[in-house]
Amino acid sequence: MSGWVTVAGLGPGDEALVTDEVRAAIAGATDIVGYIPYVARIAPRDGLTLHPTDNRVELDRANHALDMAAAGRRVVVVSSGDPGVFAMASALFEALETRPDPDASDIRILPGITAMLAAAARLGAPLGHDFCAINLSDNLKPWDLIEHRLRLAAQAGFAMAWYNPRSRSRPHQFARALEILREELPEKTLISFARAVTTPEESIQTVPLAKATPDMADMRTVVIVGTAATRRVGRWVYTPRSAG
Amino acid sequence: MSGWVTVAGLGPGDEALVTDEVRAAIAGATDIVGYIPYVARIAPRDGLTLHPTDNRVELDRANHALDMAAAGRRVVVVSSGDPGVFAMASALFEALETRPDPDASDIRILPGITAMLAAAARLGAPLGHDFCAINLSDNLKPWDLIEHRLRLAAQAGFAMAWYNPRSRSRPHQFARALEILREELPEKTLISFARAVTTPEESIQTVPLAKATPDMADMRTVVIVGTAATRRVGRWVYTPRSAG
Repeated sequence: MSGWVTVAGLGPGDEALVTDEVRAAIAGATDIVGYIPYVARIAPRDGLTLHPTDNRVELDRANHALDMAAAGRRVVVVSSGDPGVFAMASALFEALETRPDPDASDIRILPGITAMLAAAARLGAPLGHDFCAINLSDNLKPWDLIEHRLRLAAQAGFAMAWYNPRSRSRPHQFARALEILREELPEKTLISFARAVTTPEESIQTVPLAKATPDMADMRTVVIVGTAATRRVGRWVYTPRSAG
Repeated sequence: MSGWVTVAGLGPGDEALVTDEVRAAIAGATDIVGYIPYVARIAPRDGLTLHPTDNRVELDRANHALDMAAAGRRVVVVSSGDPGVFAMASALFEALETRPDPDASDIRILPGITAMLAAAARLGAPLGHDFCAINLSDNLKPWDLIEHRLRLAAQAGFAMAWYNPRSRSRPHQFARALEILREELPEKTLISFARAVTTPEESIQTVPLAKATPDMADMRTVVIVGTAATRRVGRWVYTPRSAG
């Protein structure tokens, strides 16, 4: 029996946002690997071994998955959202790079609904024009580079989605990110804080940049920053297609 | 009976990438509105009226949907990919803005798998680091602004996804976009052309920027531009999480 590894996106939380493709992969798996809360979303069954692991061990997890596949297991690495957006797909290829024959592994990446698009849908259409996605965590890149990107993104007129905006260990950085926005964008620019979207803990608020405060975000929040053209219509927030 | 409008993302083409949430909305609809090839994906049934329309009539289509909902119909506006990414959600809110009471309409936006994420999954993980999405069509914004954004995005070190890269009426613009990349990025930067991803017509190729030519893209192609750190591992293309 030949093994495989599939990296699958579970979407933001609601089971109705999991694709059939991902469900089929899970149904055919012998092993599920992933961060504890994502593995907790998989229903246990006979013949399926769950391997929940802690955060920040992405490379170990990827190597474990590749090792099991080489031994004939059928392994699904579960990510929340989309596996290619600040999630497990890159980590898997980083692990693959250190192995003798990368193409010997049978690998598939299955897309999912990433948090920013679920958040945007709840808000209206704030990413309806050109936009960018930035991971605000400096675990794997220097903070200076993040500041540089925020500034250029604002100058380019991109709407933005920020992932991992704020951690307990570096609350000052998120305050600094808001400060950069204030230097580059009008005070009335709309900024939305979408927490735990599509889960029972969902909470969403939109404020003008002038009123945004660091405590509005935590690590379960995606922050959506509008452009100069982003506006409200009724209870919705959207960016017109023709935004300058 | 009270009507509603739901704007739903059908994903890139494969039916296994449609979410249950979207399927449930379609199952409850009386009317389906959308661009001809997207409406063609909906199975006809008794009690369901299909309203396929041509491209470039997005506002008419949105108003038609809102009018029908006001008359008690249950309307799904279908988009390919995700409705919030260069698709029908923004057009709906533009139409809503011209109406007397925006919150009188019962509206929902349902996310889908957008083309760039389906393409990225096929390629590996080229969007595994910070990235941006740019619509290269100048139907609704000046070409100068697009050039400006491309340049800043390259300088910021974003991976990029380009939607609507090339039309018959403006082939020179796509050539110009490649020229700007060559001015800003190393010649060896990987660029991928993903056409009709997840459909029977799917074709994908990756070349170094030096070898990219305008004929590699058409309007069914999503172009994925790597960063300086994007590289191949076996048959895959990926951007490491730590990319500078």
